[in-house]
Amino acid sequence: MHAVPLPDTSAIDPPASAPVRDLRRVPIHPDHWYPLAWSSEVKRGKALGVHFAGEPIVLVRTESGAIFALEDRCAHRQVPLHAGVVEGESLRCGYHGWTYDGTGRCVDVPYLGRERLPNGVRAYPCREAHGLIFVFPGAAALAGERPLPDLPSVADTAYKTRRFGREVKCHYSFMHENLMDMNHQFLHRRQMGQMRARSLGRRRGEDWVEVDYTFSRLEGKQPVGEALVFGASKNSADQNDKDVMTVRTGYPYQTLKIRSGDGTLVMDLWIVYVPLDAAQRTNRTFGLLSIRKPGIPFALDLAWPLLVWFTERIFKEDRWIVEREQEAHDRQGADWNQEVFPVINELRDLLRHCGGRTVIPIREVSGAA
Amino acid sequence: MHAVPLPDTSAIDPPASAPVRDLRRVPIHPDHWYPLAWSSEVKRGKALGVHFAGEPIVLVRTESGAIFALEDRCAHRQVPLHAGVVEGESLRCGYHGWTYDGTGRCVDVPYLGRERLPNGVRAYPCREAHGLIFVFPGAAALAGERPLPDLPSVADTAYKTRRFGREVKCHYSFMHENLMDMNHQFLHRRQMGQMRARSLGRRRGEDWVEVDYTFSRLEGKQPVGEALVFGASKNSADQNDKDVMTVRTGYPYQTLKIRSGDGTLVMDLWIVYVPLDAAQRTNRTFGLLSIRKPGIPFALDLAWPLLVWFTERIFKEDRWIVEREQEAHDRQGADWNQEVFPVINELRDLLRHCGGRTVIPIREVSGAA
Amino acid sequence: MHAVPLPDTSAIDPPASAPVRDLRRVPIHPDHWYPLAWSSEVKRGKALGVHFAGEPIVLVRTESGAIFALEDRCAHRQVPLHAGVVEGESLRCGYHGWTYDGTGRCVDVPYLGRERLPNGVRAYPCREAHGLIFVFPGAAALAGERPLPDLPSVADTAYKTRRFGREVKCHYSFMHENLMDMNHQFLHRRQMGQMRARSLGRRRGEDWVEVDYTFSRLEGKQPVGEALVFGASKNSADQNDKDVMTVRTGYPYQTLKIRSGDGTLVMDLWIVYVPLDAAQRTNRTFGLLSIRKPGIPFALDLAWPLLVWFTERIFKEDRWIVEREQEAHDRQGADWNQEVFPVINELRDLLRHCGGRTVIPIREVSGAA
Repeated sequence: MHAVPLPDTSAIDPPASAPVRDLRRVPIHPDHWYPLAWSSEVKRGKALGVHFAGEPIVLVRTESGAIFALEDRCAHRQVPLHAGVVEGESLRCGYHGWTYDGTGRCVDVPYLGRERLPNGVRAYPCREAHGLIFVFPGAAALAGERPLPDLPSVADTAYKTRRFGREVKCHYSFMHENLMDMNHQFLHRRQMGQMRARSLGRRRGEDWVEVDYTFSRLEGKQPVGEALVFGASKNSADQNDKDVMTVRTGYPYQTLKIRSGDGTLVMDLWIVYVPLDAAQRTNRTFGLLSIRKPGIPFALDLAWPLLVWFTERIFKEDRWIVEREQEAHDRQGADWNQEVFPVINELRDLLRHCGGRTVIPIREVSGAA
Repeated sequence: MHAVPLPDTSAIDPPASAPVRDLRRVPIHPDHWYPLAWSSEVKRGKALGVHFAGEPIVLVRTESGAIFALEDRCAHRQVPLHAGVVEGESLRCGYHGWTYDGTGRCVDVPYLGRERLPNGVRAYPCREAHGLIFVFPGAAALAGERPLPDLPSVADTAYKTRRFGREVKCHYSFMHENLMDMNHQFLHRRQMGQMRARSLGRRRGEDWVEVDYTFSRLEGKQPVGEALVFGASKNSADQNDKDVMTVRTGYPYQTLKIRSGDGTLVMDLWIVYVPLDAAQRTNRTFGLLSIRKPGIPFALDLAWPLLVWFTERIFKEDRWIVEREQEAHDRQGADWNQEVFPVINELRDLLRHCGGRTVIPIREVSGAA
Repeated sequence: MHAVPLPDTSAIDPPASAPVRDLRRVPIHPDHWYPLAWSSEVKRGKALGVHFAGEPIVLVRTESGAIFALEDRCAHRQVPLHAGVVEGESLRCGYHGWTYDGTGRCVDVPYLGRERLPNGVRAYPCREAHGLIFVFPGAAALAGERPLPDLPSVADTAYKTRRFGREVKCHYSFMHENLMDMNHQFLHRRQMGQMRARSLGRRRGEDWVEVDYTFSRLEGKQPVGEALVFGASKNSADQNDKDVMTVRTGYPYQTLKIRSGDGTLVMDLWIVYVPLDAAQRTNRTFGLLSIRKPGIPFALDLAWPLLVWFTERIFKEDRWIVEREQEAHDRQGADWNQEVFPVINELRDLLRHCGGRTVIPIREVSGAA
């Protein structure tokens, strides 16, 4: 993996030959581990129906507590298996009672002899970690060699972690660009006051790109919620300036880390945007936000509700704007963006490069009313 | 009409040559009598707008009480005639007052001389029977030779009849298959306990197929509601076993009859699924469920609310599952069913054979979200 | 401009050669001034997002009170500018802060040098008059030579003016035809009693058509609301007969004027139907209804709430029926109208002739359910 430090002013020239793919029609690459639910959403002896890029998938926690993932359709009549019944280590369809084990094999049809059992359904590699249920929707043979994401801050008792996320009606690429372009602080002016981000330069590898920022306040006071998330500044803008934020897309995940002047990791966000529908114009966001606990015991716990409120407000503003971006793309039928920020052009190039090889066939969407 | 008793284990081989039509895109055959409303829905001097397979139809009960059915659009500006005014034996459009008689002829345009009256609208053969208003949407010339359904139990005072039905968002074929495949008792496990159906064999004619079942209880007690509908079993499973249920599709209608050990018809259901939209992915179900009155006077009347509740619950479960089948077909764009039950394959063959000759052009439906 | 008085009985022969364009797919001609908002909707220092035929447009009232209109999308990321912030005489995008002046030029990108500013967005000619904000969506070079509509009654203190309107889900042509064909009084029978319109003949010019009517009452009494709008009749139907109503489409606007027997203009309506979506199957109606004040001071003010109620009821009925017309056209996919009233055929010819040169590509709409 080579890391090339790049000056912040260079532009990326599109390849002279081939026309650039419309990024919003690049499917996410399926050969990675994607969280499809929080662990707490799949109770023992229950099934949960979820989606990955239009594929219906059922997550099952058996009576012994094991987890498996199958295509969420009965081989018989195509009805969703998540409406069925967990029996021991198997899942029985709720319509005519066809039953599948964790490998997707059909192990019982009540009105048919065992020797005549029909074919089953597809099973997906499935693992549980960090309070998330991960599924590998691509080529199952690759699942073993691809690592689950490593999240040391989540397990570290020096940090407190907030789990958050919800559905956002946009292509995952808008989410990556939103977080990586810190010039969008203007969007959060009501929450954060007038902040100015300054890019310190970017680095790029085969499947990742990252950028460092410092921030200075243009006007107003630092809100309390922000102090909790980003660390309290002392009195001067100079102090504030010493914190460094690094935003990184390590395909297909994204992280945002803030280190204080002495190198301490004070905030550590890991986030991923999982496409739900076949057109990949909707995603479910799963985020783990770890905040380093301050010296005073319980201070962070007391401040937690404020932090939740603050991050919810920020997330709501981000969600609103990226959904407007998606709407514009739907209406315009192509990517009209006029991007001038080099790191974002680098990121777009990366997402095209690492994405799936096909093109999402987006049907025409009617004009605004 | 030849009736061939068939063993329950034979499979139907698809014809070697032609590819099998997608049953979910076979339109219902229009050359039959279809109920489009309950009699009570069309009051004297009023009009009601209904649909058959995407065709808007207005049902009119004139001031003398006669019933007629027209295309539900004014020849002038295409607005629905059901928003108009019944005047005597005619229907006047509510916009500019064009007026039609029961044959669809335009008999008045208030601002035009009688000698210049324009063409009218299409009229449909229309008859009232069994508390239903039947329309013949196909070739009117055939209406006279096609009989209305014969429903002796509805008129017989030895039976009490419940009228029920509502819109279901699926192709009519899913409804036929649902009722005929009694292995789906597992769907109703919460209402009926664990029942096992046993097929006694099937028979087939030119435009009908039927199958006999007996039932045995695997576990649990017989619910009271079920006892009312299917007849109370004494103490043993053997007794229960002697009742025979016959499910028959006599195109385009369906019946379910239960006869007790001594041959008495204890339950008699007649049901039909009328396509509403052009894609025929929505139907309105009209059902007449006749229950033989027990020896004790009024016993059935007292138990009626319970029976209503029980059948509503069953119907709700059936509706839910067939709508999931339709959703799967919409998403998959084809029939992926892997049917193993011979009578259902026979039924599917019949519905293809008796259905309309065209193919429903189903537009693509986007992936699930 | 030639005005040809035409007898009311002549029909318009379609041109022998070319097939007639489907009027419902003729776009409104963009080279006219269209109101896109009421003045009161755009507060000082605020922006409002509106639409013209699918084009998103932002109306801005600067801090000095000036009005301008831009494409409602940031050149950067295509998000709506109406969610931004008015700063002085400019509009700053709410996402990354790109800023535009009233000509659409980009005058600031906070994180970019002034020498590297990117291209801006389209600006539209924009004027304010009669309490409306007018935009010229077509070729800007023509805006200067095309007049704003002249509305003398609105400025005349002898009249009191009601402003009204809302969204209606139909092509603008249905609105023109609805108002011009006074035989549709039957639609308002509950509000107006049984009135009969009598056409006195029509006139036509290059870009206008008009028709005169008198009215007689068939039965019932004159409602109070109607007396306010159309003028009170004395006792006899003869008196009523002397009022003359003139309905005129002067492309793209429409007027309805009622003059009493002595030539006094007692009612003066100006109305326009602005397409909102690209398919032009939705319009926003802006109407200015001026009523001549009676001799008694404040009498009209006292009666005003009744007049509002009356006109709202009439408008609601009209809206309901034209939306049914649009639905029928969507379902039928073509214009099946069988128009027999000469002035309406003249009007349709005019709307085709004056409309845009392209054809609205209407996607197929599914059958009714």
